[in-house]
Amino acid sequence: MPIKMIIVMKPDATPQQTTHVLDRLASLGFKTHLSQGVERTIIGAIGDKRAVSPLSLTALDGVAEVVPIRRPFKLVSREVKPSDTIIDLAFGVSVGGSDQLVVMAGPCSVESREQLFETARAVKDAGATVLRGGAFKPRTSPYTFQGLGETGLKLLAEAREAFKMPIITEVMDSDDVELVAHYADILQLGARNMQNFSLLKKVGRLAKPVMLKRGPAATLEEWLMAAEYILNEGNPHVILCERGIRSVETQYTRNTMDISAIPVAKRLSHLPVIGDPSHGTGKWYLVGPMAKAAIVAGADGLMIEVHPRPEEALSDGPQALLPDTFARLMAELRAMKAVLHQFNPLPQPAEF
Amino acid sequence: MPIKMIIVMKPDATPQQTTHVLDRLASLGFKTHLSQGVERTIIGAIGDKRAVSPLSLTALDGVAEVVPIRRPFKLVSREVKPSDTIIDLAFGVSVGGSDQLVVMAGPCSVESREQLFETARAVKDAGATVLRGGAFKPRTSPYTFQGLGETGLKLLAEAREAFKMPIITEVMDSDDVELVAHYADILQLGARNMQNFSLLKKVGRLAKPVMLKRGPAATLEEWLMAAEYILNEGNPHVILCERGIRSVETQYTRNTMDISAIPVAKRLSHLPVIGDPSHGTGKWYLVGPMAKAAIVAGADGLMIEVHPRPEEALSDGPQALLPDTFARLMAELRAMKAVLHQFNPLPQPAEF
Amino acid sequence: MPIKMIIVMKPDATPQQTTHVLDRLASLGFKTHLSQGVERTIIGAIGDKRAVSPLSLTALDGVAEVVPIRRPFKLVSREVKPSDTIIDLAFGVSVGGSDQLVVMAGPCSVESREQLFETARAVKDAGATVLRGGAFKPRTSPYTFQGLGETGLKLLAEAREAFKMPIITEVMDSDDVELVAHYADILQLGARNMQNFSLLKKVGRLAKPVMLKRGPAATLEEWLMAAEYILNEGNPHVILCERGIRSVETQYTRNTMDISAIPVAKRLSHLPVIGDPSHGTGKWYLVGPMAKAAIVAGADGLMIEVHPRPEEALSDGPQALLPDTFARLMAELRAMKAVLHQFNPLPQPAEF
Amino acid sequence: MPIKMIIVMKPDATPQQTTHVLDRLASLGFKTHLSQGVERTIIGAIGDKRAVSPLSLTALDGVAEVVPIRRPFKLVSREVKPSDTIIDLAFGVSVGGSDQLVVMAGPCSVESREQLFETARAVKDAGATVLRGGAFKPRTSPYTFQGLGETGLKLLAEAREAFKMPIITEVMDSDDVELVAHYADILQLGARNMQNFSLLKKVGRLAKPVMLKRGPAATLEEWLMAAEYILNEGNPHVILCERGIRSVETQYTRNTMDISAIPVAKRLSHLPVIGDPSHGTGKWYLVGPMAKAAIVAGADGLMIEVHPRPEEALSDGPQALLPDTFARLMAELRAMKAVLHQFNPLPQPAEF
Repeated sequence: MPIKMIIVMKPDATPQQTTHVLDRLASLGFKTHLSQGVERTIIGAIGDKRAVSPLSLTALDGVAEVVPIRRPFKLVSREVKPSDTIIDLAFGVSVGGSDQLVVMAGPCSVESREQLFETARAVKDAGATVLRGGAFKPRTSPYTFQGLGETGLKLLAEAREAFKMPIITEVMDSDDVELVAHYADILQLGARNMQNFSLLKKVGRLAKPVMLKRGPAATLEEWLMAAEYILNEGNPHVILCERGIRSVETQYTRNTMDISAIPVAKRLSHLPVIGDPSHGTGKWYLVGPMAKAAIVAGADGLMIEVHPRPEEALSDGPQALLPDTFARLMAELRAMKAVLHQFNPLPQPAEF
Repeated sequence: MPIKMIIVMKPDATPQQTTHVLDRLASLGFKTHLSQGVERTIIGAIGDKRAVSPLSLTALDGVAEVVPIRRPFKLVSREVKPSDTIIDLAFGVSVGGSDQLVVMAGPCSVESREQLFETARAVKDAGATVLRGGAFKPRTSPYTFQGLGETGLKLLAEAREAFKMPIITEVMDSDDVELVAHYADILQLGARNMQNFSLLKKVGRLAKPVMLKRGPAATLEEWLMAAEYILNEGNPHVILCERGIRSVETQYTRNTMDISAIPVAKRLSHLPVIGDPSHGTGKWYLVGPMAKAAIVAGADGLMIEVHPRPEEALSDGPQALLPDTFARLMAELRAMKAVLHQFNPLPQPAEF
Repeated sequence: MPIKMIIVMKPDATPQQTTHVLDRLASLGFKTHLSQGVERTIIGAIGDKRAVSPLSLTALDGVAEVVPIRRPFKLVSREVKPSDTIIDLAFGVSVGGSDQLVVMAGPCSVESREQLFETARAVKDAGATVLRGGAFKPRTSPYTFQGLGETGLKLLAEAREAFKMPIITEVMDSDDVELVAHYADILQLGARNMQNFSLLKKVGRLAKPVMLKRGPAATLEEWLMAAEYILNEGNPHVILCERGIRSVETQYTRNTMDISAIPVAKRLSHLPVIGDPSHGTGKWYLVGPMAKAAIVAGADGLMIEVHPRPEEALSDGPQALLPDTFARLMAELRAMKAVLHQFNPLPQPAEF
Repeated sequence: MPIKMIIVMKPDATPQQTTHVLDRLASLGFKTHLSQGVERTIIGAIGDKRAVSPLSLTALDGVAEVVPIRRPFKLVSREVKPSDTIIDLAFGVSVGGSDQLVVMAGPCSVESREQLFETARAVKDAGATVLRGGAFKPRTSPYTFQGLGETGLKLLAEAREAFKMPIITEVMDSDDVELVAHYADILQLGARNMQNFSLLKKVGRLAKPVMLKRGPAATLEEWLMAAEYILNEGNPHVILCERGIRSVETQYTRNTMDISAIPVAKRLSHLPVIGDPSHGTGKWYLVGPMAKAAIVAGADGLMIEVHPRPEEALSDGPQALLPDTFARLMAELRAMKAVLHQFNPLPQPAEF
């Protein structure tokens, strides 16, 4: 685990003194980052060994303070586990760290056997590798469709076998965890449940992958801390999913999809990161542009809602792609992914 | 100009009645969009001729109301001008509607002749087509560097000739409009001035292109209405620039760059749309991913801050790319752009 | 239940036509509200009988459309139940609709018998009528104090008898609902669980009062819809609690307490509304000003954290009042409340 | 100017060591504040003399670092000027630090001599001491009423003499600063211009009071830094005005009035702080509750929009009070203010 520090220079420190501190840090094998504040110069430093006592640096001229830094999350962090986590699912599908394009597609809600199978066939043909579908639906109003429940789970299980695709579905209630885990390859935790700590702990005691959606007003640190709850209970198979946050804009987009959350989460954590442009925008015609954006920004995969007849969907019709549009998008995404592989990664700083 | 309507069905309207209305609209040449509300079915419809009186539709069974829709912006809208606006600059550079990759690059602030020329040479070599640099700087604190003023403008003008690149620089004060317009090819209006209506009107009376940054808490409609102020005064040469908004996340990103604003603005307006990942994220290591995201989401170009020695920058050093990183990013962006051209555009609905 | 409508005038409607419509509505016993849009005049109207068909108004000159309006919430609305809901608790305490000042006070977490009893005695003496204390604690980090669990509940039950105060405590997990309900007079649902729909349904099947905190990024409508879930399951005894939302300001206040939510919620709903200035600000020195603000804005009561030694608190110490400060605040609040009673309520419009 | 420090304890510091540091600080005359972090204990300390070198404290057992703190604002801070700034206007009216209730009332826009005088008479009779009215109006759309300009200023000047009330009106353009200053007693800077730095500097060179509205997405620190721009140019007569910020709630309130900004700004700064519940809520029926809330939270005064016929107002009619409602509110506000004076201020910590 690398050691990190912030070195606060005295208000009257000279540029020469600052340069000297930077040199000293470099000679100790530290990478440094300089920032000039209103009254103070601050140096961030990161190194790979603990041989140096941070406090010894306070002896240098011009140094006011040296503060070691630690993040509140541990198990999810790249400090603890530098290599990408790869989560193996059934049928040879895995998520994270690989070069394949993982796309989880399907209807918002499972509505009927026919609707599910028709959609599953279409997304499978287009190249999706995981089938999504909601059996328990979190809805703002108690008067709207709440999902088919276990019947929906059974239909998903049938489709799983028929199309040889792992399935992902949401669990909303800690009472239903075992039930959903019995059928699903991945348990999805919805945005509104991101800080349902009881549920986090419960899925943390399972041996099943969990996909944790970012809450609509959650900071990146809160999101990672929620994942930390799951890992802390013993379950290391967590997938992060960015699905849009609340912002000033509510007329033309349902949420504001925070594409930058993807490279930041990838940088801070070893867990796979997925983008959900369907919920992220709420508009089917924005799913394409935002799916491409997520992929080129570094997402390990996507979750996309597809419905054969969006106008008849019992939930979230306006954000569902038609199968044909989905197939065209998949082709474009594969081409994007191929371009990414032609280039070496751009430089990245030590984390500060 | 197309005609648009919202048709509100009665609470007890049958699916057959709804289907009948949809058919009727289709036979009249309207495209339709259905949405199922808690208690009501709503149909959006858009057509190309005014032959039909919207109100005549109220005669159909199951229809409660028919409401014609108009947006508050006019001159900036695609309704008024369906084709992309292309803005020609000097040296054969143009912005908007073209297949070329317009990248405006350079330092945050003009600091010295040497710094500016060194940066200009590097960004020109890497393929940037417009040179950016601030002479008047909006700063949160009165105690920080406020820019070189007219001296900075003169250095920019020198660099313009030396490197044959049009230049863009910010104007903050309506008193300085003529001065800045004397030197610049594009006047930049900063995010904090997006609703400085006096300034908007003043640049609206010029014959110079204007780049209007989205305010940090502005809705898309407010942004377009601010552009409307400029066009309404007679200046049609406006470039929109998304540069990040305020959100819940403030620790890992300075702003939250709203990538979805790009396809939405392109859809609503004929004006060129540019992404600024430097201000949009505030972190140099996020500039690459977000630049790529902006391009694949449909941006007409980018504005990127580059500095030969970011650690010495008098402003915004943490978000400046090194020239070498910038050059590597440009190569990747060109490859992305080429992929986009291999595919037909994904389907788009009539606007609703 | 009143009938409400929006009347959309034609773009070329004359002022005389608008006046005529307003007169006609008035003669039918409707209250009206006029708003002048960019291109349209819109009239809101509310009346008490359904004798009039809204659509008949379309016959009037200048009228384009008449749209009846309904809110998505029903059972929580004042339309369905105009009179204030009053919830009776033990020991003669009731919440809502009364002139008494209901203050729920106590420690953030129950830490020990001594800490709880010392605090209970102090708040009782100062005039608090309900004792609060957390046994199950929602914490951002899994590594911080998570509460005493059932031991905490038992201590609360002991204090309840000793001080003759009803108790309120949080339930986080649907598995714990019966357990918490066994001890508590009011079950508290935390802000992060506001849209935990499984939990909402479960407490909705109890015969115990529930206090529902507003989520940190919830709109007022989402908050009321969450309460609707509880009422829809059969439990009418819901108290709403405003506890601060996320905003741009995060340095000087932990949350931004939305005081205006109090009069709006009181207007839309018959349920009691409580303000929580402790979580609403996160700073003990802001609790006094914001408690007073909540009361004069119409809150039915307050929830305030008190700790005999905030610097030793296992959670939320920075927002806890010392008993002495709490007592001084109570005196001031009583005086404020008395002033409110000297004046007739200010006018209120029909709801639009 | 007090000295402030943050003392960071070592991860393995014992409670005894922490207590010892607290005792030592107390014996040196420092007030302290303890906060327990995930891994660290942090002590805030504030004292009145510079006799102690903060760094000497690092010698104590368990202390890791000592960091002196300084805020980015200076001239506006209470550190530099502990006593309340009082700004004297004409006709014996002053703002700040006094016990009088300063209410600035009048129409949103000056529309005609008759409308202005009728309103002025009514608000004067009800007890308002400053007359407000807009001559230059910032409007989201270029197609809406933009104000009467200098004609409006002249009408205000007439009303000033007729009713013996100082007047406040907005200046939007740095070109108009002299013109507006010629007529107005207070220049108002609108929320959208809060970071129009050119305008801030220009009014900073006047000898006229300036009221600076908080921007709709501005942090408290940005607001104070904007005021710092004015003071830094030499004008110490600045009034701060909270007028609502953007939040998740946009349906029932136009802005979210941040009442807590009032006590925080009063605490950090010596400048007078005013609340504007008209813009803060956008709804006339919320003006009363929020006006009262602002006063009891510590505001030095209020700005309230009044119109004799709100339904005919050319701007912001929905938020204007009728004169009669205003008069009733004034009576209630005076009673609230009287209650505040009966109590000693609640305790306040040293600022941290």
